[in-house]
Amino acid sequence: MAKTITPRLLKGFRDFLPQEEIKRKELVSILEETFKLFGFLPIDTPVLEYTEILLGKGGGETDKQIYRFNDHGKRDVAMRYDLTVPFARFMAQHRNQLYLPFRRYHIAKVWRGENTQRGRYREFTQCDFDIVGTDSVSSDFEILLLMHTSMLALGIENFKIHISDRSLFNRLLTILQIGERYTEILRLVDKLPKIGRETLQKSLEEIVDNKKAKTILAFTEAEGKTPGETIKNIRETLNLDERETLRVEEIWNIVEEMGLESYFKIDPSITRGLDYYTGVVFETFLNDLPQIGSVCSGGRYNNLTSLYTKESIPGVGASIGLDRLIAALDEINPGKSQIQIPQVLILFLDNRLIAHYHHISSHLRKNGISSEVYPEKKKFANQFSYAEKKGIPIGVICGEDEYREKTVTLKDLRTRQSYTGITIEELPDRIKQLLR
Amino acid sequence: MAKTITPRLLKGFRDFLPQEEIKRKELVSILEETFKLFGFLPIDTPVLEYTEILLGKGGGETDKQIYRFNDHGKRDVAMRYDLTVPFARFMAQHRNQLYLPFRRYHIAKVWRGENTQRGRYREFTQCDFDIVGTDSVSSDFEILLLMHTSMLALGIENFKIHISDRSLFNRLLTILQIGERYTEILRLVDKLPKIGRETLQKSLEEIVDNKKAKTILAFTEAEGKTPGETIKNIRETLNLDERETLRVEEIWNIVEEMGLESYFKIDPSITRGLDYYTGVVFETFLNDLPQIGSVCSGGRYNNLTSLYTKESIPGVGASIGLDRLIAALDEINPGKSQIQIPQVLILFLDNRLIAHYHHISSHLRKNGISSEVYPEKKKFANQFSYAEKKGIPIGVICGEDEYREKTVTLKDLRTRQSYTGITIEELPDRIKQLLR
Repeated sequence: MAKTITPRLLKGFRDFLPQEEIKRKELVSILEETFKLFGFLPIDTPVLEYTEILLGKGGGETDKQIYRFNDHGKRDVAMRYDLTVPFARFMAQHRNQLYLPFRRYHIAKVWRGENTQRGRYREFTQCDFDIVGTDSVSSDFEILLLMHTSMLALGIENFKIHISDRSLFNRLLTILQIGERYTEILRLVDKLPKIGRETLQKSLEEIVDNKKAKTILAFTEAEGKTPGETIKNIRETLNLDERETLRVEEIWNIVEEMGLESYFKIDPSITRGLDYYTGVVFETFLNDLPQIGSVCSGGRYNNLTSLYTKESIPGVGASIGLDRLIAALDEINPGKSQIQIPQVLILFLDNRLIAHYHHISSHLRKNGISSEVYPEKKKFANQFSYAEKKGIPIGVICGEDEYREKTVTLKDLRTRQSYTGITIEELPDRIKQLLR
Repeated sequence: MAKTITPRLLKGFRDFLPQEEIKRKELVSILEETFKLFGFLPIDTPVLEYTEILLGKGGGETDKQIYRFNDHGKRDVAMRYDLTVPFARFMAQHRNQLYLPFRRYHIAKVWRGENTQRGRYREFTQCDFDIVGTDSVSSDFEILLLMHTSMLALGIENFKIHISDRSLFNRLLTILQIGERYTEILRLVDKLPKIGRETLQKSLEEIVDNKKAKTILAFTEAEGKTPGETIKNIRETLNLDERETLRVEEIWNIVEEMGLESYFKIDPSITRGLDYYTGVVFETFLNDLPQIGSVCSGGRYNNLTSLYTKESIPGVGASIGLDRLIAALDEINPGKSQIQIPQVLILFLDNRLIAHYHHISSHLRKNGISSEVYPEKKKFANQFSYAEKKGIPIGVICGEDEYREKTVTLKDLRTRQSYTGITIEELPDRIKQLLR
């Protein structure tokens, strides 16, 4: 006999067994329903693209992590590492077939050859939604409202969306004349929830002088302040004219008018460390699990397509990390859910009744009840054990006697109670009763 | 300004714009609902695997087409080219966490560096469903019934599923003593619908003598024969004992008892050209579009996991080529469908009413109506034109006057009829009326 190959997965890659995959599909389905309620439309793009398209100018962390190779035609290709870059390319390429403002969502896998030791995966699912073609406060708010509604739709009540504005932070760094250390400082402040204020101050003092470090810290401080106080603090630090309206202030007014204050917070420490954001930025924290970090983040970018076209298309959007969110939901709500697919197992008693079993099964399905026929004659114990392992709640039994009498026996596999003499016509209703 | 990168796709790869992506998602959703009704559960596997796992012994056409490279850790990896091989690895690896018979479905993309000139794509979606862990006739039939039910669920009435049995064809070749040209002959017969009987005979005669070629042709001939005649022909050619039951015969009996004869046909010319089938094989043809070939094919294999484990797991399954099916549906049923996502556009008239617009929009969504707020103040003409392009059927207008009177104006954008003085409370019902 030939030597067998050990069945195994690449590090950082996962199989999803039915119990997990059903849960993932349910979450995705809830999100898609929510997106559609907000008028967002789905798109899809290829997994493989020209590396040039995906990396653009390149030079970042991404270059090292991207899965890149030469294809059969010696083209330099790579697997997408996020959904934002392909979306930018998509907008530049299909601009004429689309209409602005364009609202899209995209739920798909992305790949990064990251260090898996930090509990990260190399294949994971992103869920992006954006409104492009407008720079309005209303679209900023609509993304925030969609984040809020998505969380509630997923059954998460206890969360807070932190809002900030990158352009204000940029202005602070300009005032402090530390523009050249910009990215470094941005990334440091981004780490605040992980490293704490003290470490942040020390790290900042290695880059700028003590006074400037303190100003940055004071600017980002939102703890214990009302939104009004935080905005006042921003205005004072940046020396802003009273007549100048701040975007975060406008957003907060809408939040208040909608009565949603308890779900939002103005938090100038949010910077999103990445380069392409130019306006509001936001992150979503679960009050019960602050340590897992943001489960939904995003912001406003005003040069989405600049790599591919000279036309500038502004946009605002956010991304849900589905894997992180599922891990969070599992922690908040542990315990296996019962799948109940199918709802009914037709037991196999007699080889001459195969067609009859399939007839009953089809009849149930036509009435919206999921049902399968056990594939062959085996001991009852085996068939019941199969139903139990699969979590099937109802069994339908039909032997020679029942067949002659044109009835079946119904068995609730959870209570082990049996109901005899049921006709096939009344079967769907009786099963629906039991499942209620 | 920096030079821009031309936005473009790799040959054989596609973007899906909303209109297409919505249609794809709808089809997938219909199929998933059907699979669940039959008790099939979803699984997922990684896009990247060890090349060794995917290619096994290798040596076929696949080796040339597979996307293969070395990853960051110098591992020899490849992108999956089908869903069957990963499923075999999955079963071997998770055997102990699963229960047999196991029914799974898997809808996902696969990649093959094929010649794109024949209208083939290098990235395409497969949709597989299998029952493994049993060799029963009931499971063969259940796969056939699921194929049948899936077609009907997709709105396709006019199709025929051709059934054959590879083991019978194998027996014919053994009787004719032409075992060593087995694969060659199998592939030739598989091409029958494309090349026709005459070409097939000529090609066969290049491999075997004239008499044997005629016997093979006569064996595969099903045109104009009743299933009974076809089975009789098989029995006579193979010199079968009357007491031997044929699997295709057993299946046909169930088909008849279920009254489904018009959707099925016994057709010994079906061989499925591939090596791993060992029992029944089947293909689905659309009567209106025979030239596109089979839209759903499969069969029984009795050594699924043999590459990875010494335990032998029998199975039966089929695969729907989603891209081909969508192309077929487009041809059968041309014309753009109206998406109607969202159903309502809240027009933007007054900057002071932003929160009010979002309040109305939220109120509609809570009543199950999809709705979006136009993001900024623009001319009515622009906003209406946006609604028209996106296919939004209903507009809601609220200016200063309406706001003061606590009403809105409802506008049916299809008929251009307006309804004034509607309160927000009665709005959802009025919209539902218009949408009916």
